[in-house]
Amino acid sequence: MKAVVLLSGGLDSATVLAIARSEGYDCHCLSFDYGQRHRAELDAAARVARSLGAHEHRVVKLDLATFGGSALTDKNIAVPVAGIRDGIPVTYVPARNTIMLSLALAWAEVLAARHIFFGANAVDYSGYPDCRREYMRAFEAVANLATKAAVEGARLTLHTPIIDLTKADIIRRGVALGVDYALTVSCYQADGDRRACGRCDSCRLRKAGFVAAGIADPARYQTG
Amino acid sequence: MKAVVLLSGGLDSATVLAIARSEGYDCHCLSFDYGQRHRAELDAAARVARSLGAHEHRVVKLDLATFGGSALTDKNIAVPVAGIRDGIPVTYVPARNTIMLSLALAWAEVLAARHIFFGANAVDYSGYPDCRREYMRAFEAVANLATKAAVEGARLTLHTPIIDLTKADIIRRGVALGVDYALTVSCYQADGDRRACGRCDSCRLRKAGFVAAGIADPARYQTG
Repeated sequence: MKAVVLLSGGLDSATVLAIARSEGYDCHCLSFDYGQRHRAELDAAARVARSLGAHEHRVVKLDLATFGGSALTDKNIAVPVAGIRDGIPVTYVPARNTIMLSLALAWAEVLAARHIFFGANAVDYSGYPDCRREYMRAFEAVANLATKAAVEGARLTLHTPIIDLTKADIIRRGVALGVDYALTVSCYQADGDRRACGRCDSCRLRKAGFVAAGIADPARYQTG
Repeated sequence: MKAVVLLSGGLDSATVLAIARSEGYDCHCLSFDYGQRHRAELDAAARVARSLGAHEHRVVKLDLATFGGSALTDKNIAVPVAGIRDGIPVTYVPARNTIMLSLALAWAEVLAARHIFFGANAVDYSGYPDCRREYMRAFEAVANLATKAAVEGARLTLHTPIIDLTKADIIRRGVALGVDYALTVSCYQADGDRRACGRCDSCRLRKAGFVAAGIADPARYQTG
């Protein structure tokens, strides 16, 4: 069975790809070059796709920077290093998940794939509205009205296997499935040598997850 | 009130922009360069935005051709000239409306706009699943779960003012609102001089609409 798997190059989506592979899906991985600062993620996505036996990996260029509004695409907004705050982080990219899922849907239709795997997580990203279960259900409803396949009666399923897992649980699951987390990049501002900053929200979540899982984090950090 | 208006450069979306302007919206127009063959539409969109007093007009580049699957983006599929057939036309672009609406949603969030205007039409495009009312309602539900603004209680409305109008009604409405249809391009394969082919599905729908409305079509055609 064919599946489109959204792959960012980070820890969560690598785990989701491993889960999809373990369930026997033929995985067509999709990454986005949306002007993000952490381009190291795209290289990581290619390595992860290869290491987990994906069928193919494509990168779609998307100029979200045209709109601005996020620290990840807008150079005028600083990426916070002071830890996670209440409310919605400035690293939130407007409507990003909707955009990425709609492109995954387009590719799924062309491939005649009936499954999309997405590494949304409602635990760590509780501040992101488009990481919630109700949002996923609403998008799935759109997907099942939007396409030629839907009109012809084929049902599309949006799989979000890690949506309710803690970071530690995600890591344990991935390790059990043989994910090499040394290949993944989580940092919002990794350097040219792919060393993570160790201080941004994403690095903090990752580090805390490995500590809670009792597993050594294979990432290389710029600082201690 | 701010609104994001999806503007293709064709007849339908020009009419929708005129309707939004007539209702007092401050219009931020959005077009897509998705590798379509009819690039003349993008120039037309810019002229239409200017002539109808839009606040601004932006073009987002989108590489849908990466996926293929449509005669409008895939050079291996011929654009039909034999008229409209049953079922879903080969000019259907997979998930296109979902992709365009999700990008409109992103921009709306950055602008703090609560309105999106979209020229979907369920009459002429009855073969396109993502032109139906139920699809529009489903996307609106996603929009109202997806964003920071939604979490904060702001309601987003997706306006589809021409969804149930015939082409003739759309043209009458636009003419009453002062739309200069000479600025619009409907053809899937207009030449470098912006002359329409007169034979593709889009040209046929347009021509028949002007005839039914009893109004002269100001488009220039390559053939009689």
